[in-house]
Amino acid sequence: MIPNQPFREQPVGARAKLLEAGVALVREQGFAATSLDQLCHAAGVTKGAFFHHFPSKEALGVALANYWSASTSAFFAAAPFHHLDDPLERVLGYVDLRIALISGPAESFSCVAGTMVQEAFRSSAAIRMACGASILGNAHALEQDLSAAIARHGTAGVTAASLARHAQTVIQGAFVLAKTQDDEHAAALAREELLHLRRYFELLFTTGN
Amino acid sequence: MIPNQPFREQPVGARAKLLEAGVALVREQGFAATSLDQLCHAAGVTKGAFFHHFPSKEALGVALANYWSASTSAFFAAAPFHHLDDPLERVLGYVDLRIALISGPAESFSCVAGTMVQEAFRSSAAIRMACGASILGNAHALEQDLSAAIARHGTAGVTAASLARHAQTVIQGAFVLAKTQDDEHAAALAREELLHLRRYFELLFTTGN
Repeated sequence: MIPNQPFREQPVGARAKLLEAGVALVREQGFAATSLDQLCHAAGVTKGAFFHHFPSKEALGVALANYWSASTSAFFAAAPFHHLDDPLERVLGYVDLRIALISGPAESFSCVAGTMVQEAFRSSAAIRMACGASILGNAHALEQDLSAAIARHGTAGVTAASLARHAQTVIQGAFVLAKTQDDEHAAALAREELLHLRRYFELLFTTGN
Repeated sequence: MIPNQPFREQPVGARAKLLEAGVALVREQGFAATSLDQLCHAAGVTKGAFFHHFPSKEALGVALANYWSASTSAFFAAAPFHHLDDPLERVLGYVDLRIALISGPAESFSCVAGTMVQEAFRSSAAIRMACGASILGNAHALEQDLSAAIARHGTAGVTAASLARHAQTVIQGAFVLAKTQDDEHAAALAREELLHLRRYFELLFTTGN
């Protein structure tokens, strides 16, 4: 979803280092495959430090989804597309920014929340809900612009909330399909998918359907 | 992707029982969280029987993606929508069938290949490629109808191959978003997403864009 370092500050302290290590490890191998030993080793902290901050691996998972959610939502909230006049341009600006963020191997642009919920939705309701809050929080942030675009350009049969969820659906699906590709082709496939989302939004709003 | 039993025969023999247990366990908890002990227990076979059929867990993962691919592609190949005259109606018929298959909790309609590749794309190239063959095999099966629909109805700027991949992207993303919901709401969210895909295809082909 967001390339690794540039959007987040260098982690300071054991908790932040564990969360940052969690982002990288979950993106590379998922949540279940990531052991506490690996997390502590990658973060450069002791197991004692882990349990000082998190009572369990599940608690780390919830905190990781929340950390991911906070850092990505702050990044998108500060993006320049919000200053565009036309709400449809702001919606397309969001999609264009998502496209611009996709490069390199899949683990450099994939979504921590989407990866965790794929595996853990049944084993942990707490992780499921934290991942849901992250993904649907991104949807909610786009909803106001979609609502204004519907009011200005007119469309029938779709709601802003539903279209906002669809944007996240295409983003999550694009990451899954990107992971079927080798490193050379992963990003191009994901970008192609977001261009379909862009085209759908353009068609919806320009034909007034 | 396909509800558990109706589409596949009752498993006979240790290999088929292990694969069928793999479908259920991967859908419920993912690949990494599924141990060989769990697989053998759920299949009702011994560990010796497992290693008679599969040299490793990775080999089981590859076989599972292939098994999934074979059973789902046979099911879709036999579906009645192929008999419709208009290729666009066949494309929409495929989407409608996918919508009709979505009910119950997320693990009863989710995709084994999409779940496995989400976690294992980096740790196993063999599993990544087998999952890619499964997901992109579904895309390929739709490509001919999309190509004929483009020829008959006209669209600009999109290829049949790219639209076929997009259908799989929306399906995979719909499953990820469904997993953020509780059991009561998971299916409705996934169906809503596929209705957006249907609307995109209709807009593309009816406006000639």
